[in-house]
Amino acid sequence: MATRLSDVAARAGVSVKTVSNVINDYPHITARTRAKVEAAIAALDYKPNVSARSLRKGRSDFIALAIPEMGSPYFAELGAAISRAAKRRGITVLIDQTEGESAAERFVLDGMRGQLIDGIIFSPLATAPAKLTSADTGKPLVLLGERPAGGQFDRVAVDSVQASYDATTHLISLGRHRIAAIGVGGTGTGAVRRKGYRKALKAAGMAHDPVLELAGTGYHRLDGAASMRELLALPEPPDAVFCFNDLLALGALRTLADAGLRVPDDVAVVGFDDIEDGRYHSPSLTTVSPDKEWLADNAVALLLDRIAGNGGSTHRDLTVPYTLEIRESTGG
Amino acid sequence: MATRLSDVAARAGVSVKTVSNVINDYPHITARTRAKVEAAIAALDYKPNVSARSLRKGRSDFIALAIPEMGSPYFAELGAAISRAAKRRGITVLIDQTEGESAAERFVLDGMRGQLIDGIIFSPLATAPAKLTSADTGKPLVLLGERPAGGQFDRVAVDSVQASYDATTHLISLGRHRIAAIGVGGTGTGAVRRKGYRKALKAAGMAHDPVLELAGTGYHRLDGAASMRELLALPEPPDAVFCFNDLLALGALRTLADAGLRVPDDVAVVGFDDIEDGRYHSPSLTTVSPDKEWLADNAVALLLDRIAGNGGSTHRDLTVPYTLEIRESTGG
Repeated sequence: MATRLSDVAARAGVSVKTVSNVINDYPHITARTRAKVEAAIAALDYKPNVSARSLRKGRSDFIALAIPEMGSPYFAELGAAISRAAKRRGITVLIDQTEGESAAERFVLDGMRGQLIDGIIFSPLATAPAKLTSADTGKPLVLLGERPAGGQFDRVAVDSVQASYDATTHLISLGRHRIAAIGVGGTGTGAVRRKGYRKALKAAGMAHDPVLELAGTGYHRLDGAASMRELLALPEPPDAVFCFNDLLALGALRTLADAGLRVPDDVAVVGFDDIEDGRYHSPSLTTVSPDKEWLADNAVALLLDRIAGNGGSTHRDLTVPYTLEIRESTGG
Repeated sequence: MATRLSDVAARAGVSVKTVSNVINDYPHITARTRAKVEAAIAALDYKPNVSARSLRKGRSDFIALAIPEMGSPYFAELGAAISRAAKRRGITVLIDQTEGESAAERFVLDGMRGQLIDGIIFSPLATAPAKLTSADTGKPLVLLGERPAGGQFDRVAVDSVQASYDATTHLISLGRHRIAAIGVGGTGTGAVRRKGYRKALKAAGMAHDPVLELAGTGYHRLDGAASMRELLALPEPPDAVFCFNDLLALGALRTLADAGLRVPDDVAVVGFDDIEDGRYHSPSLTTVSPDKEWLADNAVALLLDRIAGNGGSTHRDLTVPYTLEIRESTGG
């Protein structure tokens, strides 16, 4: 039988209301009363019921992180970093996998059905920008990623256009002439990164060739492997490929290995995300490396600041620093 | 301004208590009253406050999954599978990363400080079996993994001794004579898998050589790469290595590539977990493949059965089916 508030009150010789006030850190309680109650709590090993307590206090010290996919190493690494960043501040992160489904994302935007969380860090996939703009979560929310929020929420994101420009320019600087892109398509990440890719080609006086821009069906190794097979079947295959995430690049590398082609000699490959997998791969993968620790730390800080009631109607947009990590897949 | 219970009551022309009874599915409400209240809820787009509601109903339809590490692909893939298995049953999974720390695991065993969750699926790392046995979570809990629970909780686990026996026997069947093991050590996974490894050597009349058993400092690529370097520096290096998880094996493969050694000709490599990374690697990785979908589905079903009040004092132990996937790293 669990110890109840009334047991603590009886042992401390005070009212239930007084015990409740001590637990909830209300002011105007004498040190002596507080000590008596705390001694009774310790003696009886009483554990306050947080659900009841949070209802009164309005804080649970839990935040939620809603991501499309846990099985994707980028989100897994990011989730781990956000969890650590929150823990340093005494906050526990609960992670919700939406699978990028509209219904699951709507549920997040609705404030996660009143779960006892103080706020949400949300990486949307399916929700259209217009819906994000009009959403009323009723809880502080920080957005991650490409999708513009129409100024409605705080946001933390990489400048994907610039980063993709840099990645493509690196391939151009190696003297490559037929540079393919894998992962174009959609209105989110694919569109933004293609913009940077095309911009770099244009700046170098190279025309973009639609036959070298592959959308695929997703952002997994499987899709990268299939897109690379399509590219190798072209009358004039590419001598370089910029994949819009590392998983696509790792799939493409597998296809190149199967075809007996040398990387980077025959085909140079660049990815995006800098997941651990690419660092250990043979050849190791050149990639855009967003500073995930910075991202995690700032997303958590921004959310906690908002939970504390700061920020007002100013919506903040933070840009995550990144580097281009040049490794074996482009001759580094 | 959010719609309140009293707004719904006013519109439906009933008492607040009646609205509350409808929301909480209490019996003895006429179909006509229910219809009136539901129409008012729809018209006003009223969203019940789940925190208050759960307190009365005692159910939130949320469960927690506590794992040591999200950034580890095995746990990321498992978390994704458990999340999907729960969603098929209308349950949302919130994932908590403990980093294998005692304090974080104690917090899980304490029922996660009264968070609004109906139960917990827990993969412990730091907590000693004795503490697991005496834990009193106050909430249904299903354990994952090697750690014996002393009959206290339901548990879902792979038979790691048998699986490690099979993996080692496969290397023996290839005619390898110096079979190393990476990842021994500790009292959990490392100890159990070493037992199966030694058992297989013994069954083949081969002595185990302590110099070929490497503990390393963890279960990451980094540790596998370092352990493999140690093994290659031996006067008589191994011709095969069984790594106790795929990350160790991927690290070992990188060291072998750097050393210019051929896999499997010079050194055959086997892993454990069957993460996607190993399937796409060149060479692809031979590994023990636990049926993660089966594991996820049964862990969720077991927990929900326990939440529903079934199972009594019988504690159930489910063994996850597995296969040995023979791929290029052992000549498959």
